Amino acid sequence: MPLQPRDPDFEHRVRSSFARQAAMQTLGAAIERVAPGEVDLSLPFRADLTQQHGYLHAGVIAAVVDSACGYAALTLMERGAAVLSVEFKVQLLAPARASRFRALGRVVRAGRTLTVVHGELRGFDEGAIGADGDVVAVMTGTMMSVRDRPGLVD
Amino acid sequence: MPLQPRDPDFEHRVRSSFARQAAMQTLGAAIERVAPGEVDLSLPFRADLTQQHGYLHAGVIAAVVDSACGYAALTLMERGAAVLSVEFKVQLLAPARASRFRALGRVVRAGRTLTVVHGELRGFDEGAIGADGDVVAVMTGTMMSVRDRPGLVD
Amino acid sequence: MPLQPRDPDFEHRVRSSFARQAAMQTLGAAIERVAPGEVDLSLPFRADLTQQHGYLHAGVIAAVVDSACGYAALTLMERGAAVLSVEFKVQLLAPARASRFRALGRVVRAGRTLTVVHGELRGFDEGAIGADGDVVAVMTGTMMSVRDRPGLVD
Amino acid sequence: MPLQPRDPDFEHRVRSSFARQAAMQTLGAAIERVAPGEVDLSLPFRADLTQQHGYLHAGVIAAVVDSACGYAALTLMERGAAVLSVEFKVQLLAPARASRFRALGRVVRAGRTLTVVHGELRGFDEGAIGADGDVVAVMTGTMMSVRDRPGLVD
Repeated sequence: MPLQPRDPDFEHRVRSSFARQAAMQTLGAAIERVAPGEVDLSLPFRADLTQQHGYLHAGVIAAVVDSACGYAALTLMERGAAVLSVEFKVQLLAPARASRFRALGRVVRAGRTLTVVHGELRGFDEGAIGADGDVVAVMTGTMMSVRDRPGLVD
Repeated sequence: MPLQPRDPDFEHRVRSSFARQAAMQTLGAAIERVAPGEVDLSLPFRADLTQQHGYLHAGVIAAVVDSACGYAALTLMERGAAVLSVEFKVQLLAPARASRFRALGRVVRAGRTLTVVHGELRGFDEGAIGADGDVVAVMTGTMMSVRDRPGLVD
Repeated sequence: MPLQPRDPDFEHRVRSSFARQAAMQTLGAAIERVAPGEVDLSLPFRADLTQQHGYLHAGVIAAVVDSACGYAALTLMERGAAVLSVEFKVQLLAPARASRFRALGRVVRAGRTLTVVHGELRGFDEGAIGADGDVVAVMTGTMMSVRDRPGLVD
Repeated sequence: MPLQPRDPDFEHRVRSSFARQAAMQTLGAAIERVAPGEVDLSLPFRADLTQQHGYLHAGVIAAVVDSACGYAALTLMERGAAVLSVEFKVQLLAPARASRFRALGRVVRAGRTLTVVHGELRGFDEGAIGADGDVVAVMTGTMMSVRDRPGLVD
């Protein structure tokens, strides 16, 4: 199914909303790519984001993949709607140790109110530029389009 | 079922492992309580941990509740075992806006290899000291006891 | 929070909708109890509902707990709304072998469109009447109130 | 990553274990395909497997996709191991109304103890033979290889 944005200004909406996600700046994440139903974020490894064994903390993984998925959903929402996470599940496939990571958010199905999303975190080591990376974690989630709360947009 | 720690030194193991979770320090979380099968963490609100609407980012919620749940599981694991998150699901019940939060991790069932956990994030506003707080999010997860990877403990 | 049904006729709506769930009759499930935000179903063990090791099949567990949770959500929905499952997660805690089971569905939070639910399957052996049973599986899920599809009710 | 079965007899193990899953016969499911890391099941629509609106019950969906995923995991397990479902999450994407369904189970990552799986239910209407069908539901799950319980195999 081809994913059709209802708002031609979707990329600007995603980028300006992401710029207001203070948590993403705190973690050091940046937008790599925005397309209808698809958003990629990059996250360099940082030792201050690790769990006790030195891997990227599962919650940090959840944060960047959730943002990627939420903004993937927002690309298809109508102007004036705000995106909120209803729920997500994360499965950790391998220890998250790499020099940089990419979070991929993809829309699986976009409904009027709910959007089903799939996400991944991939790890890349130095010198592996161009490769697809190793899948470290997968996420499935449900995002909601909120249209009736004054002041809540994007 | 009464939860019996297999290692009497469980509290020290949890506290010293938590101290090595650099991500928890970055987010500003601290241990409030350690008991067999139960760990509570505190997290003050910080504007640099929010999403685009000013609520605590869902990934930050996931991070502290995952740590609380993982350490709740670790309290019941044998000496030398390391705890790893296999998977978790987070459901957001209400916007996470409060002056401080508490993450509760609880063991639902402790098996030899896998531990099923339940967690919550509760929000507290100033002047509400002593109350139970409002449940902002719930988590269910699966934690794994890893005993065979050299160098991987707690 | 006290759960207030918006439709005083909620029990009749649940019972008549359940009677139309042909799958529940095929599996042999029956309603045990209906209260605001709470529905219990009973399910006798049957050898033709098992997986390869002779335990109740995880999908059969999912079916009865999903129905219990969906109807728990319906007790709080307005007249004319239909309940649909958005998503659920099931965690298997122990082999499902007992002579009879009870599925408990509970509302955790009832929103206007989405309802967060928690469910359990408990096993009871002969002679254990009156006890709470053993928790075999837990479920968390999201139910949706659908109000705008002609012909779709309860 | 190419998925290598550790037991060349994997297909026979899957088929004979499936034949012992009485629940699958009760629901009318059959094996369509077995390959390393992949199992497809077929399920014809039956009115006695529906929920209150006449769609296939979400628990029946869970049952066939869980079996497909569990057996996909079993194809890669060593001889003598038994497969058990640890947890799964199901997301319903569309009403499950079609004349027949196919459940696809796929291994995402096979570890020594745990296997991460992905599954789908697709609906097919009469005359649509050859097409890919419509995705009605998706599942992600965790399967466990149990090697130490006497009498528990496949």
